[in-house]
Amino acid sequence: MTDAAAVIERVRQRVDPTPAERRALAAAASRLTERAEAAIAELPVAADVVQVGSTARGTWVAGDRDIDLFVRFPSDLPREQLETYGTTVGAAVLPDGHEEYAEHPYVTGTFEGYAVDLVPCYDVAAATEIKSAVDRTPFHTTYLQEHLDDGLAADVRLCKQFLKGIGVYGSDLRTQGFSGYLCELLVVEYGGFEAMLAAIEDWQPPVVIDPAAHQQASFDDPLVVVDPTDPERNVAAVVSAANVATVQHHARRFRATPSEDAFTPASPAPLDAAALRSHIDRRDTTPLAVVLDAPDVVADQLYPQLYRSRDGVVRGLREHGFDVVRAAAWADERAVVFVELASAELPAVERHVGPPVSVGTHAERFYETYADDDGVYGPFVDDDGRYVVERDRDVRTAGGFARTELGTVALGARIESRVASGDYDVYVGDAVVEALLPEFESELAAYVDPKA
Amino acid sequence: MTDAAAVIERVRQRVDPTPAERRALAAAASRLTERAEAAIAELPVAADVVQVGSTARGTWVAGDRDIDLFVRFPSDLPREQLETYGTTVGAAVLPDGHEEYAEHPYVTGTFEGYAVDLVPCYDVAAATEIKSAVDRTPFHTTYLQEHLDDGLAADVRLCKQFLKGIGVYGSDLRTQGFSGYLCELLVVEYGGFEAMLAAIEDWQPPVVIDPAAHQQASFDDPLVVVDPTDPERNVAAVVSAANVATVQHHARRFRATPSEDAFTPASPAPLDAAALRSHIDRRDTTPLAVVLDAPDVVADQLYPQLYRSRDGVVRGLREHGFDVVRAAAWADERAVVFVELASAELPAVERHVGPPVSVGTHAERFYETYADDDGVYGPFVDDDGRYVVERDRDVRTAGGFARTELGTVALGARIESRVASGDYDVYVGDAVVEALLPEFESELAAYVDPKA
Repeated sequence: MTDAAAVIERVRQRVDPTPAERRALAAAASRLTERAEAAIAELPVAADVVQVGSTARGTWVAGDRDIDLFVRFPSDLPREQLETYGTTVGAAVLPDGHEEYAEHPYVTGTFEGYAVDLVPCYDVAAATEIKSAVDRTPFHTTYLQEHLDDGLAADVRLCKQFLKGIGVYGSDLRTQGFSGYLCELLVVEYGGFEAMLAAIEDWQPPVVIDPAAHQQASFDDPLVVVDPTDPERNVAAVVSAANVATVQHHARRFRATPSEDAFTPASPAPLDAAALRSHIDRRDTTPLAVVLDAPDVVADQLYPQLYRSRDGVVRGLREHGFDVVRAAAWADERAVVFVELASAELPAVERHVGPPVSVGTHAERFYETYADDDGVYGPFVDDDGRYVVERDRDVRTAGGFARTELGTVALGARIESRVASGDYDVYVGDAVVEALLPEFESELAAYVDPKA
Repeated sequence: MTDAAAVIERVRQRVDPTPAERRALAAAASRLTERAEAAIAELPVAADVVQVGSTARGTWVAGDRDIDLFVRFPSDLPREQLETYGTTVGAAVLPDGHEEYAEHPYVTGTFEGYAVDLVPCYDVAAATEIKSAVDRTPFHTTYLQEHLDDGLAADVRLCKQFLKGIGVYGSDLRTQGFSGYLCELLVVEYGGFEAMLAAIEDWQPPVVIDPAAHQQASFDDPLVVVDPTDPERNVAAVVSAANVATVQHHARRFRATPSEDAFTPASPAPLDAAALRSHIDRRDTTPLAVVLDAPDVVADQLYPQLYRSRDGVVRGLREHGFDVVRAAAWADERAVVFVELASAELPAVERHVGPPVSVGTHAERFYETYADDDGVYGPFVDDDGRYVVERDRDVRTAGGFARTELGTVALGARIESRVASGDYDVYVGDAVVEALLPEFESELAAYVDPKA
């Protein structure tokens, strides 16, 4: 047995559900389906029940206890009735459940220890004719049931555990990683987990995979996996370039040096104040933190806004002449944009380059603007023949930037409104330590020990 | 009379030689020519004497007292004999003169208060057949005598005084400005001084002027004036882009607001230590000076080496992460590369971006280099999917850079050898003040009051 095979065998023992687990889940799903069918029989409309998701496909990782049931209504049913009937069936199946809302309401609850979602959808003829995103899901299950066998399903479990271990599993907008469906398609595409790793090692982004050979749209993403049920959809649309690279890195590492580590999420020891101070001293940088109460929105809204804000703050600082070493954004009770700067203070003057002297009116206007201004050095002519002045900076400190200029940078909507009302705090240098610990002790631990 | 005409009239009174000055100069030139012809008569070879330069063309500025005589020998005369005969004639004409050496020796001395150069050259059929650069000069004089009249010659004097006033007169490699011959061609081309200013105001570099409409080479210069005596030569080759822009700036200023100031070189009051410190405080920058004894070479060798060294030091500092606000290079007894920095100190770590993870062997090698190095942060993967480490900087201070890294940057040859032997000093911050004053008090005065 190769090293890789031995490692994989040990991982299989962790991720493969036991026969008892399978039987229990199948029995629970069956009882739920019967309940749903009984409720449907009471309705003045025909509908059927399909089990979807990883537990329908046999690709769930041992210990996962999610059952997803979709109730398919005729596609000509008005939306309000679909919602009403769906809620009615949901309440009958999960009397202790509650409604949640995606594109339309669905019912979520627990049943015999399983987390159950009961989702109404339209029974359309093809995934390309869907009326709502959830209508597509049954087609995914059908496609995979046709293409997966027990061996591939087991390899999907390995793949999921691998991606969890390296921190890129999940198509939520915080992770920007790989969905379960994407794992399934990749394992099917390459014919197994190890073959998939071998293929990933050679990826040259942008990578395009089209299992059904029917791509009809072009995608500007580092990884494109055309949905076999919809030629215009990239299943990997949310996967970031960094996560594509991370998978590639770990595929290469695992193949060179197989280890169970890749299948185990890192959990760095939380960082205490002394350790954080020691890193800041060692790096001799200046940290800046913009801190606010986390906006009360779901994670898939919060994180894109937070990342956009981080990028906006970094861009703004750079445009003002600050040298950013690294930046991050985190959320817990509070949300934080954390920026590490080479220096938190700039000279009093900045070089302001104007137009080439040769551009006539425009150049003349620049010259006239500054010619009689005793507060600037110049205008003079640079080596390229452009007018230049050295003028006083508006903003000389990173803290000053964060306190007065955040309104000028691109921020996420809910963060922008907080900033507009001054409802945020700015910390610079050592003050950052007390401000962020212990709330962000895990995030800071990862920050000071960054890994591929 | 327009404002411009009134200003120009006053300048003419300063720059036009008086009839007495003209007569005296013509008489002196005539006597020198007779002496030279007498000496030639003693030689076993035929030759003639031509007066060249601005005093031959009537374009000299009042007070200039230069007479240039060229002795033209047959083009088949061996070079050693040309040199011997030239020196013989020179010694006869200027018994108190001494030899200098350009492409070949010539004699320079004084005669009745005039500075006289007596230069041997070959009498070739056309400027394109020259054997040495000086052979071209008589053709320039012939061309201009055909194209200049008294009015244009007077406007050439205005042009020269204007370019002197704004600091761009002289084709030496320190100034990188306009030669007298170039002034003459421009005034002829545009038909007068004011017409020239009007044309310059509209220049869109690169500007190409070809008086004889015979250009045969292409030139990568911001200003091209094809020599009417040589289709492959750009008379304006040494003029820098900055000087083209400077002329354009002042042409525009003069036409908008005529003033005699443009015809008067600026002479800023020398800067004392208190004033320099006050500027440094006000700008809140850190000055750095690399100082050495000026290499003992002529200015046309020294300044290109000095400018190259300045550019090399600036590039090196930037490559090491320093933010350079402005830089300069000056020479007197000592030579100095002066650099003004936003900050003289950088963080302990620097971001070192490696290859994209996807590039296989190259990426793997980068990862392996740092994977087990406890001294770095990372390797991790950046947003673009590249490996990154944050590693300790080799050089954290600008002074350290100047003391240990100058050998790694492009320097002028004679400065490079000084640096190689450690024969230079580095000053940072306030120490620069005492180190550079009073020797560079004028240069520093101009530096802290930069003008177009």
